[in-house]
Amino acid sequence: MTGEFDLIRQYFHFPQGRGVVLGPGDDCALLCPQPGWQLALTSDVLVQGVHFPEEAEPAAVGHKALAVNLSDLAAQGAEPLWVTLGLTLPEADAAWLAGFADGFRTLLARQGASLVGGDTTRGPLAIAITALGQVPVGEALLRSGARAGDLICISGHIGDAGLALMALQGRVSLPPADWQALAPRLHRPEPRVALGRALRGVATACIDVSDGLLADLGHLLQASGVGAELRLGAMPFSPPVQRWLASGGDPMTLLGAGDDYELLFTLPAAARARLPELAAAGGVPLAVIGEVAAAAGIRLFTAEGEAVRVEPAGYDHFGTD
Amino acid sequence: MTGEFDLIRQYFHFPQGRGVVLGPGDDCALLCPQPGWQLALTSDVLVQGVHFPEEAEPAAVGHKALAVNLSDLAAQGAEPLWVTLGLTLPEADAAWLAGFADGFRTLLARQGASLVGGDTTRGPLAIAITALGQVPVGEALLRSGARAGDLICISGHIGDAGLALMALQGRVSLPPADWQALAPRLHRPEPRVALGRALRGVATACIDVSDGLLADLGHLLQASGVGAELRLGAMPFSPPVQRWLASGGDPMTLLGAGDDYELLFTLPAAARARLPELAAAGGVPLAVIGEVAAAAGIRLFTAEGEAVRVEPAGYDHFGTD
Repeated sequence: MTGEFDLIRQYFHFPQGRGVVLGPGDDCALLCPQPGWQLALTSDVLVQGVHFPEEAEPAAVGHKALAVNLSDLAAQGAEPLWVTLGLTLPEADAAWLAGFADGFRTLLARQGASLVGGDTTRGPLAIAITALGQVPVGEALLRSGARAGDLICISGHIGDAGLALMALQGRVSLPPADWQALAPRLHRPEPRVALGRALRGVATACIDVSDGLLADLGHLLQASGVGAELRLGAMPFSPPVQRWLASGGDPMTLLGAGDDYELLFTLPAAARARLPELAAAGGVPLAVIGEVAAAAGIRLFTAEGEAVRVEPAGYDHFGTD
Repeated sequence: MTGEFDLIRQYFHFPQGRGVVLGPGDDCALLCPQPGWQLALTSDVLVQGVHFPEEAEPAAVGHKALAVNLSDLAAQGAEPLWVTLGLTLPEADAAWLAGFADGFRTLLARQGASLVGGDTTRGPLAIAITALGQVPVGEALLRSGARAGDLICISGHIGDAGLALMALQGRVSLPPADWQALAPRLHRPEPRVALGRALRGVATACIDVSDGLLADLGHLLQASGVGAELRLGAMPFSPPVQRWLASGGDPMTLLGAGDDYELLFTLPAAARARLPELAAAGGVPLAVIGEVAAAAGIRLFTAEGEAVRVEPAGYDHFGTD
């Protein structure tokens, strides 16, 4: 570890919060789990050029690297507690580090979580994060609890991040105001932690939309051993997305696009009346986009009543994403 | 995630053990901490070309990447429970993956720990690991408890890994039998988990030797606000190292070399009689190499009684290593 890399660590002196007995500085951090709670753990690696472009704003990279992990905790109804950050960097670029640390710290503090460990190494830019949260014993939201007849619900808007990515890649052209509205949805997704917490004891299954609505719904349905009927007309599309669709854009592209980090969950039909209360607790609008069916597969009905069969995506065998 | 990378995950279907309520496959793993225990957490990133050479045997890379993290848990007296693995790989090389997974799994199973999460991404070869262990509340071994008069002790042999590295780099030449004996000490260090556990309630401070004996002793002394007197003649050098020293090698080089992953700890002088029992419980010889002194700094006495002043190394502000 060079002196240069010792200096990097100065950017990550964050305050320590809940459950931290001893922060970074010894061989290990010491953490105190709360009796009656289980821990939820998730781990993601983001590589420059794969998960974010070289020109990405460093604060947005810091935010998103943490957000995608907190989104996994949210999808299980867990409250973020402790995070580790493994950073490989080609050089100690002070402006990049200050921006990255700022984006990371701001989201971490807003969620009341602590950075309890990490490592900084010279190498091609990559960010490895492990996040731990807590959930009361037996109350974790799993992918496997959906039952035929349940409502399929989604938070926020779908396709915003996908359309922003297409614009960034030059594949579509957007009015400047619409780009301004959509870009933060791609670069600074908001993990739905409060919603995940509110869904404990109510939702029968939950997953976050990282790979795309249809792919992630496929994961949930396969884990639950059920299928789904979806209504395209019920999809919550934002005004910029609605304008793009009105100009001839294909909605199926957006249902296949990832990075929205909204929560996709199932509710017993009898709980429909609780949706406004859940939306208020989660601080995000909720929409019912279909129902769980006993027969496997996803059947999508267009606004014109046309049925489109959609293959569920493959089951993820290793990752905790 | 390409199909190729989905296949990679097949190499990491390991059995799940203690405290794992739900293994990989959902958004998060679910873990059940034991009441009355705290968690110890550590995180390290290993980059090809920095921490291991490109030609390193994959099983040894898998072993060592895990071992350096388990060594941090051992240094705090914690028993390994749960590990996450973030792997970036330039390509899905089946032979490399099978070897890496084998080295990783063998050590993981021997320590009774579980791989509970991870992520696999395309990119330059790097390995990010976060390891969690458990230790009874209040019994963690910290760096900060050493008091003047305590004995300074070390497990196993010192300098084996450093001499092997010098031989690998062509800086020294060793008889083939000595290289055969030393190479595993560099490539497959054994985390001293059983010893760390035995030291709970006995040792006043502990650290693992990753940066080098003098550097890591410096960390321990600085955290404890004390100094040390060391006897070079008491250093436990292995027969191959003794032969190299007899041929004119400089012992100071070995006290500055890292990678031994032995435990360096302090004991109240009254506990000296317990050393044989601790060595038996830890399955490794123990040596007393000096005493803690009230005055800051490390004073090293050569076998000829000559005093050499050694500057303690800098304090590590960010890492949990």
